[in-house]
Amino acid sequence: MTLEISALVFDAYGTLFDVHSVTRRAEALFPGKGAALSAAWRTKQLEYTWLRTLMGRYEDFSRVTASSLEWTFEHLGLEATDEARRALMDEYRRLAMFPEVPAALERLAASRPLAILSNGHPDMLQAVVEHNGLADRFRGGVLSVHSAKRFKPDASVYRIAEDALGVPRSMMGFVSSNGWDAAGAKSFGFRVFWLNRAKAPVERLGVRPDAILADLSELPAHLANPA
Amino acid sequence: MTLEISALVFDAYGTLFDVHSVTRRAEALFPGKGAALSAAWRTKQLEYTWLRTLMGRYEDFSRVTASSLEWTFEHLGLEATDEARRALMDEYRRLAMFPEVPAALERLAASRPLAILSNGHPDMLQAVVEHNGLADRFRGGVLSVHSAKRFKPDASVYRIAEDALGVPRSMMGFVSSNGWDAAGAKSFGFRVFWLNRAKAPVERLGVRPDAILADLSELPAHLANPA
Repeated sequence: MTLEISALVFDAYGTLFDVHSVTRRAEALFPGKGAALSAAWRTKQLEYTWLRTLMGRYEDFSRVTASSLEWTFEHLGLEATDEARRALMDEYRRLAMFPEVPAALERLAASRPLAILSNGHPDMLQAVVEHNGLADRFRGGVLSVHSAKRFKPDASVYRIAEDALGVPRSMMGFVSSNGWDAAGAKSFGFRVFWLNRAKAPVERLGVRPDAILADLSELPAHLANPA
Repeated sequence: MTLEISALVFDAYGTLFDVHSVTRRAEALFPGKGAALSAAWRTKQLEYTWLRTLMGRYEDFSRVTASSLEWTFEHLGLEATDEARRALMDEYRRLAMFPEVPAALERLAASRPLAILSNGHPDMLQAVVEHNGLADRFRGGVLSVHSAKRFKPDASVYRIAEDALGVPRSMMGFVSSNGWDAAGAKSFGFRVFWLNRAKAPVERLGVRPDAILADLSELPAHLANPA
């Protein structure tokens, strides 16, 4: 089955941009602890976005990322210099794209606007988009949750994309590698493509994605107007 | 420093009741996988409470617990019978108290009302309270988030205890072993005792507990009216 989609909105971290280089940098700084550090950091970072939204205590994603890194250092008993902190945080500004992403985006952009919708602070997002030479690719905008002062999967976040693009939610395609983000977007009313890069079980959150993809090159086959 | 506290509210799972027996049962059912199963199950269970509250898709804690168990079975590649499912779910109804809990509760109850405030479905809570012979211990009530249709740390949940006990939040003592629950209660305005059973780092969520305890027997020393 193919879907009529007027615009496509992409999650950033883990979906377009590979966070693996964070693990590599962590391993270089703390030999033998890189994988544990980056896994615990990512888990705590997400937890803090959810908890702060529930508590009504938003702070921007850069600060959440820094706070969760401090927790992780203490959790793992690591002594970190300010230089190490900066080096790890800076990785987020120059993540590489997954290999299939540039060609897929070029094809998809031919017949509809593309946008990013991310938890990232606007500055972080702008940096990684420019680092990858994508400044002109997202005609629909590089959108951050920052204006809503809430994080995904709060419904107000998905509304940012609906409002910015002026496309009704049932004609909006949303692509994320995070199962819970896919569920949040589906619950809001978007058409959802879950990029299941990790081959994870589908989340049991009461909704299912419209399609499950192994990588982004599979997306055009699901669209009524593939290019 | 001691605090004037008019009533004490306790979290249930992990705070009063030890969830370790879930791990034991999991290990008996799936040898070699018990620890991994119960850790992944608990993590996913909490995630689902936060995500469903953010998505506005509340379902009760029994169902969240069952859904997260299904995810965990698939994640670990385990084939489970309905009997195994039931056995694991039933453990929650007959968890044991941590060893110091009965004497501490008896002492604390002498001069103020005690209550439970938990994510648990009212039926699950009633079962574990009765299993431990505590039906008369909680004069302030065995309170569930179920009436708010939102999970911790949403502020509306802590208001349930404030309303039920009729005690202003600044005179209410709240005890939880979960750092994020302690942060949510503190953000709401309770006096908070974080029972740091796991010796975890303090959560970086913009608030700090009033005191950190190794176990519940340390609580009276922090109260202006210890018994």
